[in-house]
Order: sequence, then structure tokens, then C-alpha cells
Amino acid sequence: MSPKNRLIYLPLGGAGEIGMNCYVYGYGPAGKERLIVVDLGVTFPDMDTTPGVDLIMADVDWLEQRADRIEAIFITHAHEDHVGALGLLWPKLRAPVYCRRFTGLLAAMKMEERGLPVDDLHIVDPRPETVAAGPFKVQYVPVAHSIPESAGLLIETPAGKVFHSGDFKLDRDPVVGEAYAPEVFTAIGDEGIKALVCDSTNVFSPAPGRSESSLPEAITGLVANAEGMVVATTFASNVARLKTLAEAGQAAGRSVCLLGRAMNRMVKAAVESGVLSDFPPVLTPEQAAEVPREHLMLIVTGSQGERRAASAQLARGKYLGLKMAAGDLFLFSSKTIPGNERGVIRIMNAYSEMGVDVVDDSGGKYHVSGHANRPDLEEIHAALRPEILLPMHGEHRHLREHAKIGSDKGIASAVVTNGTMVEIGGEAPKVVEHVEAGRVYRDGQVLIGAMDGVVRDRIRMALNGHVLVTVIVDEDGELLGDPWAELMGLPETGKSGTALVEAMEGEMVEFLDRAGPKVMTDDDKIDDALRRIARQVAMEQIGRKPEVTVVVSRLSE
Amino acid sequence: MSPKNRLIYLPLGGAGEIGMNCYVYGYGPAGKERLIVVDLGVTFPDMDTTPGVDLIMADVDWLEQRADRIEAIFITHAHEDHVGALGLLWPKLRAPVYCRRFTGLLAAMKMEERGLPVDDLHIVDPRPETVAAGPFKVQYVPVAHSIPESAGLLIETPAGKVFHSGDFKLDRDPVVGEAYAPEVFTAIGDEGIKALVCDSTNVFSPAPGRSESSLPEAITGLVANAEGMVVATTFASNVARLKTLAEAGQAAGRSVCLLGRAMNRMVKAAVESGVLSDFPPVLTPEQAAEVPREHLMLIVTGSQGERRAASAQLARGKYLGLKMAAGDLFLFSSKTIPGNERGVIRIMNAYSEMGVDVVDDSGGKYHVSGHANRPDLEEIHAALRPEILLPMHGEHRHLREHAKIGSDKGIASAVVTNGTMVEIGGEAPKVVEHVEAGRVYRDGQVLIGAMDGVVRDRIRMALNGHVLVTVIVDEDGELLGDPWAELMGLPETGKSGTALVEAMEGEMVEFLDRAGPKVMTDDDKIDDALRRIARQVAMEQIGRKPEVTVVVSRLSE
Repeated sequence: MSPKNRLIYLPLGGAGEIGMNCYVYGYGPAGKERLIVVDLGVTFPDMDTTPGVDLIMADVDWLEQRADRIEAIFITHAHEDHVGALGLLWPKLRAPVYCRRFTGLLAAMKMEERGLPVDDLHIVDPRPETVAAGPFKVQYVPVAHSIPESAGLLIETPAGKVFHSGDFKLDRDPVVGEAYAPEVFTAIGDEGIKALVCDSTNVFSPAPGRSESSLPEAITGLVANAEGMVVATTFASNVARLKTLAEAGQAAGRSVCLLGRAMNRMVKAAVESGVLSDFPPVLTPEQAAEVPREHLMLIVTGSQGERRAASAQLARGKYLGLKMAAGDLFLFSSKTIPGNERGVIRIMNAYSEMGVDVVDDSGGKYHVSGHANRPDLEEIHAALRPEILLPMHGEHRHLREHAKIGSDKGIASAVVTNGTMVEIGGEAPKVVEHVEAGRVYRDGQVLIGAMDGVVRDRIRMALNGHVLVTVIVDEDGELLGDPWAELMGLPETGKSGTALVEAMEGEMVEFLDRAGPKVMTDDDKIDDALRRIARQVAMEQIGRKPEVTVVVSRLSE
Repeated sequence: MSPKNRLIYLPLGGAGEIGMNCYVYGYGPAGKERLIVVDLGVTFPDMDTTPGVDLIMADVDWLEQRADRIEAIFITHAHEDHVGALGLLWPKLRAPVYCRRFTGLLAAMKMEERGLPVDDLHIVDPRPETVAAGPFKVQYVPVAHSIPESAGLLIETPAGKVFHSGDFKLDRDPVVGEAYAPEVFTAIGDEGIKALVCDSTNVFSPAPGRSESSLPEAITGLVANAEGMVVATTFASNVARLKTLAEAGQAAGRSVCLLGRAMNRMVKAAVESGVLSDFPPVLTPEQAAEVPREHLMLIVTGSQGERRAASAQLARGKYLGLKMAAGDLFLFSSKTIPGNERGVIRIMNAYSEMGVDVVDDSGGKYHVSGHANRPDLEEIHAALRPEILLPMHGEHRHLREHAKIGSDKGIASAVVTNGTMVEIGGEAPKVVEHVEAGRVYRDGQVLIGAMDGVVRDRIRMALNGHVLVTVIVDEDGELLGDPWAELMGLPETGKSGTALVEAMEGEMVEFLDRAGPKVMTDDDKIDDALRRIARQVAMEQIGRKPEVTVVVSRLSE
């Protein structure tokens, strides 16, 4: 290793939030490192902070400016927060993309949706297959997670080996896919690990994680005892769970039908890629509609209460010819991601009104997490014995707690958040640079920056309402007609019973009649004055200051 | 009891949600019943469904139209969801208001805030004191809850006795206030209860509720072991918890300071009303700023992550001269109400970035609920032995589950939601009428109906953005100048790199130039056409259809 070369780690997304994962590694002379990118994920908007936005992803501006230095993009698994931005961001990076077979099928869809070629998409087999990418040699190490073919990356560099865990849990019997085998990780540890970059999602869960295989018994029992139709939801990508649910239906003598686009796409990809070979036969919705409800089981999308998913459609009434009824059972085989509670509860209550019994995981019987809990993380630390621990895939509090665990064991651990570049070739991580690391929104069909002000204006209109004022003047500043105000998102009538619009227009006419030519010949001055009047009248009449847009039209006679 | 008289129950708020409690009882000839109202509460808005709204309360239009038949308003306790709308709705009802002493102090504030007299506010002592209100005789039965002087109401009518539980738990040692004594409820049951109208909040919690007195040991231990400043938050109205927290600080040799208006108001009311006699001495924020941090404990508002509360202010930096620092401890002695997760997590992460250790109740050690769990509800059913059970204070799923428990025990139970009037003088509840039961919003200084469209327009602007178009024509339909578009909450540039405004204006000019006099002399036709063009161009350029407001100004020459 030349003393001038350095090994760097730079998270651009995922280190400070759960979502939009995007991590960069580099090796080479400072400022000229050859780069690899791990994951290009999205995160989802919410009404509080990002109304109207479709998807959120990491700002890869820093990478785009260095696109000629990118050797490869590695996708660890097919969850949206790891692969969801591939089609949107790849045109900025244009490097070869590597992933395992199942992930590849979904990655290809992401590319094709955006009209992009899939020539640069390469399927990699697990270790010992090795991808050479400039100074990096990368192997896919299968890990158990809540989607098939999840993988950690063993990244060999001239400065030592990095293990990038991806999302993982320790599951000795994961129903679908490769089981956790301690000796695999011990063997990797024996090779010597410079740095472990590690999933932190469940660092606050004190008990060891539970296996996917702990669920079939409880789920099968629940379905067997149901009397009406059974409908179950889980994440569409949790193929092992889909299998458990479908088999529980089959065991109870029920025909199975999958509802929701994502659900069908995932099962198709799992069968095509060979990870799923014995899924029970499924009916189309048309066929299912003919089956007596006590012989039917639906597996549907929408475990997070998403408004357009099948669970929400069924909560509103008929969907694809199917309808819930009193005596049916609805199972949430899932946990509610923080922030989604309101949507999920809305659906639960809609079902309650229909007389449908809703069962969720509050008793801890019908769902297990896909992430390593605290003792599992400690087990992996012990197996890999890294010199450096860099927690990732977590909010700040998760990263901090995870780093504490490492430090307590004498591992050089650091909280490295989005935009912080650290050198990790030495004994401890060393901050070498701070990079602009923001968020980019897909908004309709365009990408906008989080700081552009577009979303800020939407939030303001939602909180304050919007008043439009138009006024027409001639070139000499004479008023042509009266000013006109329109309201959007504001009460029409004020405290005194006066129409708000009339009160505003009255004050404006009075002002404009008195205003001298200095004001009347200056559009900005008119704009400012009318805005001030609109806000002031609104404050008096309704007790709030709205957003105001003033259009001054100046006509030449 | 004359056969023509009937006893009715009509929830207007709280039966179908947790919040805005408002229940009506009536006795007399059909349509001429004399009425009493129990509670006038609020619920809180959220960005998803009620952006910009300040408070939400039940629509009491039905009551207002029958104000002359209202004998009295009874407030069960001082939580906002029971008393928060008193000042806003009382002017519509103008009946005498009854409550216990502590509640009375807060109810008086609600009236005074709105400039209302407090002459109609009457303080009632617990049973055996009895309020005669037309055909009703009402006694306050103390119950334990998470605020002092909570009460159930024993309502005697010519058709039998109703027990309206209020919010309650079974706490044999509640730290502050009256302990649960089974014999009290058995004695009330012995008198014969026609109907139990009962809190359903925790019906899905399978284990018996825990006493407030189970907390001091764990909290005292946590505070004793802390090294830096300790900051704790809980609901300001949970006076028992404030006492436990303050005493834990005192035991650890720390000075205590209360931060947040609500916190100070509650302790003051508790001391004034005599429910709290031995609260540790408290410092002002100015005094606290002089105390070394390892000798200081702050008790602050904002357990739900509210943006303006003390917890959020401290998360953003200095507040009233006080500031958190690395090594401090922040305790959430509270649970997060569904829907508030994002705000709470935001604060946790802000503290994590400061190096503050955050402890919450995820381990079940630092908080207990104020509501009766499932076994506690069963205990109360057994003690009171009602003929009829009407679950209240819950979402539909809670009411339904609670009614199931009653039915399983042979009690005539029914899910009665807001707006459903039932007769309860017979053996089982009988639906007699459906009443319009909506929601009213306090929005700034005015009340608006939930269905007015104001909030719907705000949500649309937030999701879709807003385009304003102005165009000026003369009376003959000649265009005076070019149409003008302005954007709010929309990206400036479309897919093709064109300015969105210019693309819209271009299409509009083209349309108007070609339009005949039939269009150009008709404001509505111009409006429709320009709106359509704005939406179509936006769809092509940015892939979304915005809200559009068109102002056609018609000038006479």
C-alpha cells in the first residue's frame, strides 16, 4: 500500500435515517480515489414534511461530479430503500451495476420503467465469486433478511477488508433462502476485517431476534380456526412470509389469491429466480370471487395502510370483485413503521365497522423483524472481530447506541452520518471531509432539490391558506377597475360576519385611492402594500396570516 | 315512570375516536326530553387530514337548537379531550357547568380565555353531594386516572341509574388522589345499574393495569445514577407523575425546575385545589441556569414531540437560558400517542446528536397508563352488574371489542357511535334516531365546519401545488395584454428544461388568439379553457395536475 493512497467511507444516505441507503467507498490518492457505490435506495414522503412528493432519494451530486471515478454500483438486496432509486439515479452515474439474481429481476424493472438499458446490470453469484472493480474486490455474502437473496459485501482493498453488512438478521431457519451459519462469519473474521459497516435498525431491541420459522405454527392455527374469509397482509417482498401465509391457507383447505401488483411481481420474481419452488397454486381475483368465502384466503398488499394498496381498497368496499364481510378475519402479519400508525388504524376501524375481526402482531405471534437485534449485533461483532465499527442503516440514535456497544468492547467505533467522509485505513476512523449531502425529491416527473422551496411553499399554503390579489393599473399609475381578491383554503367569513374578500378589497381600494404616483408607478410597492393589507385584514377577521400572491398588471392604453 | 317518557343516550363525540368527548343524556317525552351534557372536549389536528387547523371539537348544532332543554353540563375531569372545548362551545349552550374543584380551576381558565363569565361554573363535592338537573340527579364518584380529581358520574333517572365511567383506571395507590376501592363500586352495583357507559381506551391491553405507585422506585434509581443534567417529560396534567419525578430529583440532591406554561399551570391548580400539598420546591428558569447541571432536574412539557413545547425547544438549542449537553439524560415518562411518533423521534435524534442519553418507556419501567385494561374493565362490569353496556371513549375497534366482552357475559351491549341516539330505559339499547354528528374546527379565530371545503382546498394545494392565471379582456372580448401565470409550490422547470410558466403562457396566448367572440365574451368559458391548458401543460412538463385559479378581469374602455 502506497502511503499516499487512502481508503475512504462516505455515506450519502441511510446514515442518519432508516431509508434511502447510499454508501460510497473509495481507494486511491486523496481526491482521486476510485469509487464504488453500495445501494441506491429511496425513502417515502409524508404529509408533514414532504406533501405532494412521490419519492425521496439521496442527493448524489458529489458522485455525479466524479462519475468518471466510479468503478461499480453494488446493490445488496431488492428492498426499495436499497434499490428504489436505481432507475432515477443511474443516468447520473452510468457505472456497471452488480447484484444477485432475485435482486437483478427487480433492478431490471427499475431500469426499464425509466426506459434505460439493462446491459450494465450484472448478476453475481455468492462468494467465492468475486467482482473486480478497480482497486476493490467484492464478494456477495448471503445473509438472512425479510426478502430473498439479501447479502452483505466483503470488500477487499489494498488497505484491508471491509464487511458491509447490508440489512441482515441471524436466522438459522429462514423458511426461504440461506440460513445463518456462525462458522461462515467466523471464517470471514479469521481473514481479518479492517472495518465492519453494520445495520443498526434494531439496536434498541434487547432480546435475540426470532426466526421466520417461529411463525408458521401460530399463523396456521389462526387460519385453521377462522370461519369467514381470511385476508392477510405483509410486505410484498417478504417472500418467506407469503409462503407461510399461503401454506397456512392451503393447510386449512383454502384457495389462495394474491391481491396487489407488488405481491404478484414479487412471487413471480421469486419463482423465476429459483428462490421459491413450491408456492401453493394461486387463483386470479376473478376465480377467487367464485369461491365460497370460508374456503378462501387473500394475501394482500398494504401492511402500512397505504391508501392505494389492496388492504385500503378492501376497507373502502369492493375491490376486483372481492369484498370483506362480517365474520371475516384480517391479519396484519407485519409491524407498523413509525409514522404510518394513522393510516393503519384508519383501516382497522373501517374493518371493525364491517364486523371484520382484525388481528395484528401486538401479541408478538404473527410477525418477526428482518433485522439483527442487539445480542445478534454483538454476535456478529464477535465473529468478525473488526478493528473499526461504523454503524449504518439507522437514525442518529441507532448509530450512536450501536457505536457505544462497539466502543465498550474496545472496537474503534464512530457515528458517521450522511456527508461525512472518513478515512478507515488506519487504526481508527478519521474524518477527512464534509460533503454536501442532501435529499432530492421525485415530484411528478421531475427531480427537485429538498431546499428549492417548492415543498416549503406547499406546506405554507396548507397551514396558512392562500390569497390571490390582482390589480390593474395603467402606465401612469391610474387604477383600472378595483383590486380583486380570491381565497383558497380560507374561511369565507370573518369574526364580524363580514365576507373576508370584501373586507380585503375594501381596505385595498381605500389604500390605492390615497396612494400617490410614487407607489402607483412601482409594481413592487403596490405588491408589498396589498400583501400587507391582505394579511392584516385576515388577521383581524379570522386570526391568521395567509400566504398572499399579488399580480399587478400594467396596461398601456 | 310515565310510559311516554324515555331515557336516551346520544354521543356527539368520543364514540368512534379517542378525543373530543361529548355525550348527551335525555329524559322525557320523545323529542321533548330534558337534556344533560357530559364533557365538552377537543381533539388535535394533524397535517394529513386537518392542516392549519388549531383544534377540533364535536359539532353541537343539534344541542344548540335545543339549548332551552339543556339542564346542565357536567365535566368529568380536566383533560383537554373532556374540557378543552368548554370556552368555545359554551356560548352555544349556556347551561350551568358542574365539575370538581381541580377541574373547576382549569375550566374557569377556558371560560376566561374566551372572555366568558364564570358565574355558571359550579364546584361539586364527591358523592353523596348530588346535583339535581331536571329529571336527573347526578353524583360525582371519584376514580383514579392520570389527572387529579377524575370522576365517574352516577346519574339517577326515573328510568334507572346510569354509571358514566369517565376516564378511569383501577389504582389502589395512585400517589395523588383517591385510591380505587372495590367496595365502592360493589355498593353502587348493589343500588342497581341500568346502564354502564364505559371507557374503552385500553380494551386491547390484556394484562391488569399497573399502579402509578409502581414507578417511583425505577424513576428514582434512574435519576440517582445520572451524571449530567436530568430532564424528564410527561403530560403536564399528570400531577402524580410530576410529583414522582420531582421527588426523584430531590432524593438525588437535585434542584427541580418546571419548564413549560402547562406544567406550571397544572402544579399551581393542584396546589390551589388542595390535591397536592407536598410538592418539592421549584426554581425559576433563571435560578436553574445558575445551578451546576449535575445538581439540576428539569421537568418539561412536550412528551408528544409538540414543536413549541419545552422538549422541542431544548432539542433546538437554548431555552430560557437552559441548554442540554453531552452526558445529560432525557427521560420520556410517557407513551407516544399513535400519530405523534415522527415528532417524538425527531426530538430523540436531535438529543442523540447533542450526546444526550434518551430513555423512554420501551422497557415498561417509566410510565403507566391512566386507563383500565381489559381485566380491569371486566372487574368493573362485575362490580356494577349493569343491564346494559355502552362502550365509549374509543375508536370503533375499541368499542366493538368492549361490546363483545359485555355480550359474552350476557350484558346487553351495543356499539353506539357519534350521532346515534339510543333509548336505554328498556332491557336493551334501542336505536331511535340518527343525528348529524360532525366535527367543527377552530381555525385561527373562527369556527369552520369540517365539510366546508376549506381544509380540503389546503390539502389539495399541499399535494398538487397552485397555479394562478390572470387575463384581462375588454367588453368586446379583445385581449388586453398577455395572460400571466404564477406558480406556488411547483417546480419552475419542466422535463424539457422549459420554464413551466412560459410553456403555460405560450399555450394560453395561442388559444386566446384563436378563440372566437363566443369564448372571449364569456368569463366562465375563458376560465375553463385556461384552467384546462394550465393543467395539461403541467402534466406534460412536470407530470402532475396542479390546482388552478383563473382571474378574468374585464375592463371597460
